[in-house]
Amino acid sequence: MPALPCWLPAYTPLDDFSLENIPFGAGVLPDSSSACCVTRINTYIISLNALADAGLLDDLTTHAGLSVRSAFTAQSTLNAFMALGRPAWRSVRTRIQELFTIGGRRDIHDDESLQSKVMHDASQVKMTLPCTIGDYTDFYCSKEHATNVGVMFRGGPPEKALMENWKTMPVGYHGRASSVVVSGTPVVHPSGQLRPDPSADPTHGPCRTVDFELEMAVFVGTGNDMGTSIGVDEAEDKIFGMTLMNDWSARDVQKYEYVPLGPFGAKNWATTISPWIVTLDALAPFRTNAPVQDLAPVLPYLTEKHRHTFDIDLKVAIEPASGEGASVVCRSNYKHLYWTAKQMLAHHTVTGCNMRPGDLFASGTISGSDASSFGSMLELSWQGTRPLDLGNGVTRTFVQDGDNVVMTGCAQGDGFRVGFGTCEGHVMPAASGR
Amino acid sequence: MPALPCWLPAYTPLDDFSLENIPFGAGVLPDSSSACCVTRINTYIISLNALADAGLLDDLTTHAGLSVRSAFTAQSTLNAFMALGRPAWRSVRTRIQELFTIGGRRDIHDDESLQSKVMHDASQVKMTLPCTIGDYTDFYCSKEHATNVGVMFRGGPPEKALMENWKTMPVGYHGRASSVVVSGTPVVHPSGQLRPDPSADPTHGPCRTVDFELEMAVFVGTGNDMGTSIGVDEAEDKIFGMTLMNDWSARDVQKYEYVPLGPFGAKNWATTISPWIVTLDALAPFRTNAPVQDLAPVLPYLTEKHRHTFDIDLKVAIEPASGEGASVVCRSNYKHLYWTAKQMLAHHTVTGCNMRPGDLFASGTISGSDASSFGSMLELSWQGTRPLDLGNGVTRTFVQDGDNVVMTGCAQGDGFRVGFGTCEGHVMPAASGR
Repeated sequence: MPALPCWLPAYTPLDDFSLENIPFGAGVLPDSSSACCVTRINTYIISLNALADAGLLDDLTTHAGLSVRSAFTAQSTLNAFMALGRPAWRSVRTRIQELFTIGGRRDIHDDESLQSKVMHDASQVKMTLPCTIGDYTDFYCSKEHATNVGVMFRGGPPEKALMENWKTMPVGYHGRASSVVVSGTPVVHPSGQLRPDPSADPTHGPCRTVDFELEMAVFVGTGNDMGTSIGVDEAEDKIFGMTLMNDWSARDVQKYEYVPLGPFGAKNWATTISPWIVTLDALAPFRTNAPVQDLAPVLPYLTEKHRHTFDIDLKVAIEPASGEGASVVCRSNYKHLYWTAKQMLAHHTVTGCNMRPGDLFASGTISGSDASSFGSMLELSWQGTRPLDLGNGVTRTFVQDGDNVVMTGCAQGDGFRVGFGTCEGHVMPAASGR
Repeated sequence: MPALPCWLPAYTPLDDFSLENIPFGAGVLPDSSSACCVTRINTYIISLNALADAGLLDDLTTHAGLSVRSAFTAQSTLNAFMALGRPAWRSVRTRIQELFTIGGRRDIHDDESLQSKVMHDASQVKMTLPCTIGDYTDFYCSKEHATNVGVMFRGGPPEKALMENWKTMPVGYHGRASSVVVSGTPVVHPSGQLRPDPSADPTHGPCRTVDFELEMAVFVGTGNDMGTSIGVDEAEDKIFGMTLMNDWSARDVQKYEYVPLGPFGAKNWATTISPWIVTLDALAPFRTNAPVQDLAPVLPYLTEKHRHTFDIDLKVAIEPASGEGASVVCRSNYKHLYWTAKQMLAHHTVTGCNMRPGDLFASGTISGSDASSFGSMLELSWQGTRPLDLGNGVTRTFVQDGDNVVMTGCAQGDGFRVGFGTCEGHVMPAASGR
């Protein structure tokens, strides 16, 4: 299937934001004070609110027969659109493609006044969180990552590193929604309770081992009622789309605090996401088989009819403040995950937990099997024992103040690309006295 | 200090909702379709939105000089009021007392038309969640509870049961905000992944050990910015008030899932709170010394200038569907907690986690030292080994379908009472097929 032709000036399909993508987000347009719902094609930000105001979505209806228009009118987030369900998400994506394809609808193409309302230069738009995130959950679904952490924290050989429950369920924990921020938001070096010397009392001070975690995350679209659960094979229709995530971690805080109730302050100081949510329809060409699950029998409520995942290349770079430029420190792929997003959602709701439109759940660190594909500095430097050479004489064991950590992810099609943009965060020094 | 005299018919100060209380909540009034902000005096629900509309709050201003009126106008939750800060909360409470005290202001007393807008029979009002809860956190602050759980789950003598980190920080974990429901909402018996026989594969099925947890919880009023922390001595001014909480638990699910990332599905299926938030101003007469912290040195960021807590009697009753009536199964007190609410909030923000108006954090199960004061069936029946006699031949090891679990809490003053109402939940059978 050749790439869709697009009439936008200087259009290239070999960009994260091709006409095949049509990701969803929210941003503040020039001369506006509040955010609106948007998509992006190459460097053009397209206002969905303006499309709706122009009546270009009026004929698109939900399964209840309602126009999708109201989901955008006067909305600064995607929550209302997310609640409409997959047929609505699909019809809006298709409509946008029709409006910008050569040979498609000419409503925008032939109307310069409408263009000025709908189309904006990406450099002039301040992206915001795409939706109100009611709850955020972090899973732990990479076998390679869980094995690495097991070996480092509990010792023993890799084949004994996984807990028994890890083999039969996607293990997860509830995270902090308030500190989820959009790419580009600076994050402040955390302080906390540490115990570097296990034979001495703990101390309070700046974290010594600031880390990133390379993750992908899912935004829930339609949810479920409390007391019900989502079947693994119906889970895909509940998923609005995916984004890139950096789940910042304070490893030394984590090590002392996490037994027996799990990570808390070590993870709640910041979580950065890319501004763009890529739909599963856009990712459909990149379906691939998920890893065979042979660690233990999979219970029926987690057994998928079609066990597939998506082939999405992921990359992490560190850009030190000292000016050496960005160095890639990790190359991984979403397809490595042992547990799929459908399984995460089925397990998340198995006891009756309700999901709401805009809820977010993440994969956990996505590591591959070779050392260059490990998704955290904890693993890349093997707990700080193997400093990583970034080139130009710069080395890192963990992230330092002033570093900009840049995650990117994209799927490469036949002549076109579907990408997630960047997920960036600059680490600021701790305020004095904290 | 004698109780305040009140002109409301049949008024008694020996009620949870005395004129000394003035708790805050939200509810749907008769002939209304949406909730508004309310308080309660005895059986009278007082509409704060109606007070604001009548101009009776216009002269009350925030520290920024703004009228508090707008915090209620057209609001269905308390979030806007919570964001105003403690002087505003205090001035509204005082104003309400003035309006209903004999010898106070006569605006409502002398205006029957206004009375019909402001005052409503509690039995005609459907209480709702008091605010939008952005994030919910559960701590683990009772030494007696943590000791009991340590002995049961890990074995060994009580004096060795606490983890090292428990002694130096209020250990906590992020919970699920979506499934926090107001008292009276039925909860559905959860199913999940269980492993009753550790030598066999896990199974999927109904939880066999449904439990309650007797807790008290704090609603954050004004919060803090991400990257900053709240000092332990400034924490009290950030706290809007307290409520009763039942943190429902699926013990068998918890036992298999919780290592190493903490409780997840075992706790996210339901958390019930009382509809009323009692302010710290109302609780001030019940200040008492908090337990001496002698387990380990307390770090400066957790060291309180004044180490006090509140004397609040707590009670749990189980009312079986079979009609035997309610039997009290536990009597405990908030003052038993080793870590105070101020310490929880300081620790919650120590790494830079931001709190927002309406965020909720809970104490963890509040157990006392004798067996009748244990705040969960897990402890009361000692993991099901000691069935509890409810009277009339009814026994329980855990909670059964059809049971109504009723928590109450109140502080008894000199001639008046300040209480929290009830926190009730009825357990419904699991839907078939889940």
